Amino acid sequence: MTLMTTSSETGFCTGNQTPGIASEKIYAEGTIFPLKIGMRQIKLSKTYTTKDREFSSFPLYDTSGPYSDPSIVTDPKKGLLPIRDTWGFNDGKTSPSNDSSLPVTIPVRNPLKAKEGVGITQMHYARKGVITPEMEYVAIRENQLLESRASSFHGNHNNAKPVTPEFVRQEIACGRAIIPANINHPELEPMIIGKNFRVKINANIGNSAMGSSIEQEVEKAVWACRWGADTIMDLSTGTSIHKTREWIVRNSPVPVGTVPIYQALEKVGGVSEALTWEVYRDTLIEQAEQGVDYFTIHAGILLEHLPYAEKRLTGIVSRGGSIMAKWCRAHKTENFLFTHFEDICRILKTYDIAISLGDALRPGSIGDANDEAQFGELKVLGSLTLVAWEHDVQVMIEGPGHVPLHLVLENMEKQLELCHEAPFYTLGPLVTDIAAGYDHINSAIGGALIASYGCSMLCYVTPKEHLGLPDKNDVREGVIAHRVAAHAADLAKGNHAAWLRDELMSRARYSFAWEDQFNLSLDPEKTREVYRQSMASSVNLNKNADFCTMCGPDFCSMKKSRELNG
Amino acid sequence: MTLMTTSSETGFCTGNQTPGIASEKIYAEGTIFPLKIGMRQIKLSKTYTTKDREFSSFPLYDTSGPYSDPSIVTDPKKGLLPIRDTWGFNDGKTSPSNDSSLPVTIPVRNPLKAKEGVGITQMHYARKGVITPEMEYVAIRENQLLESRASSFHGNHNNAKPVTPEFVRQEIACGRAIIPANINHPELEPMIIGKNFRVKINANIGNSAMGSSIEQEVEKAVWACRWGADTIMDLSTGTSIHKTREWIVRNSPVPVGTVPIYQALEKVGGVSEALTWEVYRDTLIEQAEQGVDYFTIHAGILLEHLPYAEKRLTGIVSRGGSIMAKWCRAHKTENFLFTHFEDICRILKTYDIAISLGDALRPGSIGDANDEAQFGELKVLGSLTLVAWEHDVQVMIEGPGHVPLHLVLENMEKQLELCHEAPFYTLGPLVTDIAAGYDHINSAIGGALIASYGCSMLCYVTPKEHLGLPDKNDVREGVIAHRVAAHAADLAKGNHAAWLRDELMSRARYSFAWEDQFNLSLDPEKTREVYRQSMASSVNLNKNADFCTMCGPDFCSMKKSRELNG
Repeated sequence: MTLMTTSSETGFCTGNQTPGIASEKIYAEGTIFPLKIGMRQIKLSKTYTTKDREFSSFPLYDTSGPYSDPSIVTDPKKGLLPIRDTWGFNDGKTSPSNDSSLPVTIPVRNPLKAKEGVGITQMHYARKGVITPEMEYVAIRENQLLESRASSFHGNHNNAKPVTPEFVRQEIACGRAIIPANINHPELEPMIIGKNFRVKINANIGNSAMGSSIEQEVEKAVWACRWGADTIMDLSTGTSIHKTREWIVRNSPVPVGTVPIYQALEKVGGVSEALTWEVYRDTLIEQAEQGVDYFTIHAGILLEHLPYAEKRLTGIVSRGGSIMAKWCRAHKTENFLFTHFEDICRILKTYDIAISLGDALRPGSIGDANDEAQFGELKVLGSLTLVAWEHDVQVMIEGPGHVPLHLVLENMEKQLELCHEAPFYTLGPLVTDIAAGYDHINSAIGGALIASYGCSMLCYVTPKEHLGLPDKNDVREGVIAHRVAAHAADLAKGNHAAWLRDELMSRARYSFAWEDQFNLSLDPEKTREVYRQSMASSVNLNKNADFCTMCGPDFCSMKKSRELNG
Repeated sequence: MTLMTTSSETGFCTGNQTPGIASEKIYAEGTIFPLKIGMRQIKLSKTYTTKDREFSSFPLYDTSGPYSDPSIVTDPKKGLLPIRDTWGFNDGKTSPSNDSSLPVTIPVRNPLKAKEGVGITQMHYARKGVITPEMEYVAIRENQLLESRASSFHGNHNNAKPVTPEFVRQEIACGRAIIPANINHPELEPMIIGKNFRVKINANIGNSAMGSSIEQEVEKAVWACRWGADTIMDLSTGTSIHKTREWIVRNSPVPVGTVPIYQALEKVGGVSEALTWEVYRDTLIEQAEQGVDYFTIHAGILLEHLPYAEKRLTGIVSRGGSIMAKWCRAHKTENFLFTHFEDICRILKTYDIAISLGDALRPGSIGDANDEAQFGELKVLGSLTLVAWEHDVQVMIEGPGHVPLHLVLENMEKQLELCHEAPFYTLGPLVTDIAAGYDHINSAIGGALIASYGCSMLCYVTPKEHLGLPDKNDVREGVIAHRVAAHAADLAKGNHAAWLRDELMSRARYSFAWEDQFNLSLDPEKTREVYRQSMASSVNLNKNADFCTMCGPDFCSMKKSRELNG
């Protein structure tokens, strides 16, 4: 595959072909709209025969964006190309003049918004029966050019039917799936979040007051996509929030989410009690015009929940949640995100920003899991979902947190029941409190399980969770760990493309096709490097030999097993 | 805790106290026998109050053996002290002369065996109603000095009752648990494997023809125990098998397992077809006299299963399984491990070696999971279990392998049903085929799930799985990943000590007691180091501040939440 190497001058990633990783960027085309959907096609070293088809190459779902296309020159200072502008679907939008006083160094276009009284959200169109370019895009993307091929899946549920644009439309119309796609993020390659689609993962990036530069954060974002993040959240706090976000959005091929209360809090000097609806509202509009695709909004935490939170082992561990709790307690007033929720929806619908209803009361320890505080808030999130849907605003629901394995299923069941099947987006869950340093593994365990039950997107956790801010390598470890989890859930749900990939990997393994194994794995560079080191550290051997250093030639079971069959 | 540092001269580990990790080695005492059960007691920086008790220290289950006791000088060339000799329970054993022609450099004592016609296995005593020192040892060890303290667990099953020696006896008598403890392994600190006890993990070590020295393997074994392995398996092939094993057993405080067919194969020049019952029998006795505590024996793969294996994606991926399949096919004769199974039991009962019935037909790809080959063999393993039990030989059953998440439960249910509740010991399961380089995470996902359903021991998988032999750091990553999984399962099963540890960790986290968090985590050194690096890379701060670099001081939810409650 094409890899991004770091330019020593800017710290940014640019597309370069790395020798030895056999894949190429290909594009599928839309039939309704003039779309080009990028995929990573692996060139296999030979032809593999599955039940009803031969494969000499295999197309993968690709989140890396234009950075992995060697024919595209990217320049982080200019941003990515506005591909969505070329899809011919621009009705209903207008462009007021831009506020040029904002501190942005990247070229900024005039932001779009919906004309007064005109619906422009994906949910609006879906309910009207209209298929948008974004719907066709995600349908083709989900299929991975693998429609109607049989796989070896056996199980009760089978998602092997091809995804059609009409099916996407239906899922969005009923709120069971969302396409986060702000009309001011034209660089976006649309993706869909919902339980009848491929399980997605989010990578959090963003600086804190504790250091790290804008360049570092943009680089992390680009690399997170390269390793497999389906969305990124910019959780920056501290200085330069606006500028950091502008750089990230302009360079991001995946949806960008934020938690607007963080910036609002900076605007009032870090004092929770000083927050006002007006400051928050202006922050929403500022970010909306920049192109943020979804907002985490902690509108579900109410005064009535606070006594339950006080009984907890670890209180409130959501940053946004703790800010709103302080505000509510100080003013003895209901959460303004709740009382102004319809106002929020009216803003969001003019840009088609999805709401991610924040779980302010997610448990921060397994002892607090599934308690009154958590499920009390979840019920409110369910009622807010219905309010947002009245405005054709797309919604997903954020979930825990720390939950022991035996209580994971109840989380999924309650969410489906209380939130009307709006997509569930969970942080983990972490299945123990004591795995600091290894919390990416902890989270992958809970994440795989809840995704196999129907959770639509997993927020990654890195090895630094509970200890510090992730660096680039932590982002890699976090993303891949959750790709393992998401893929495991896709297999459990019968995702067709997932089964075919595993089948090819196993056929490659059984025939000692090492290069194909590297390329089909989730992290080809690492796999190849680990193998190379293992072989290098042993006696001089034919590097394409029919065994590996685990067993050596005499004890290779696969070799013996093949001899048996031959 | 006491750490082992590597002596540059020998490459071996010796006990040294590392400054800054606040724990000490303590010993609980037996009331029936003169036992001393080592534990690692964490010194907490302050007193934490749980439901019914205050903790200013917390005792942990400790697998590290004498190496973590600074008052004990260990010398790998002499081996560990034979602690079991002092327990006053030596009836029924005799000591024939030793074969001094074997290539051993470590001092070797004359091996013991049962007197003719006398039962000496743990199962024999259990069925007679006799409590052995080993039974009392594991009862005290499982309780971790935490009997009858309430925890915050809520769920359906609750294992919070204290473990008594009598309960241990009953579980062993009915075959639901085993204590692998060869009478020739006097250095052993006994442990118990069974679904009503703490979930255990095994670490595979051992060299192949591809390099790595005896010293490296012993060092890996010692470190594996230090990081949390409950048993180790020496899977050495190639030269020096006998010598490597002698060094490992003499220096191992945990049970050592082997797959005797590997050495038998070396004795016949690596040619599977040349294997004979006589060579195998002699190998069993050789290893029995050395003190190996359990043998993996692939007695369940029969001629009738081979056609099923041939239809598979990845055939036979068990090394022992592929050897026996080749032998059966070449001789057109039933597996001699099956036909001689009673002979094997007669040997094993004279040393009290447990059988780990090998799953020669475990699936090597998710496409092969839960097929006729796998479940056909499992049924045979169930019938062999009953045969072994007739001889009072302790049995556990090995399990897969590669299994997608939605088929994991069926594995556990079928094993319980077909194998009469003999403990299940699984390799993973790996829940996808494409996670090479990250297979320890892949395995931790499936392992946590199957252990929460009742699997008793998880065999670790390292990041090198499918690619090469693990080095020391891979052993660490593999052990800790599976400790996370096992602990998550213990929580799901209501293990009392596990809940208390998580509660203390969360209380430490909520009160910013960083040192306590490091010490209570699964890998204190790593946790502390990650935190230290994070703080060092940010601006100059009070290192004991009430926040971490993830959020910085203004955005710390726990800080805000505490202020709210205060």
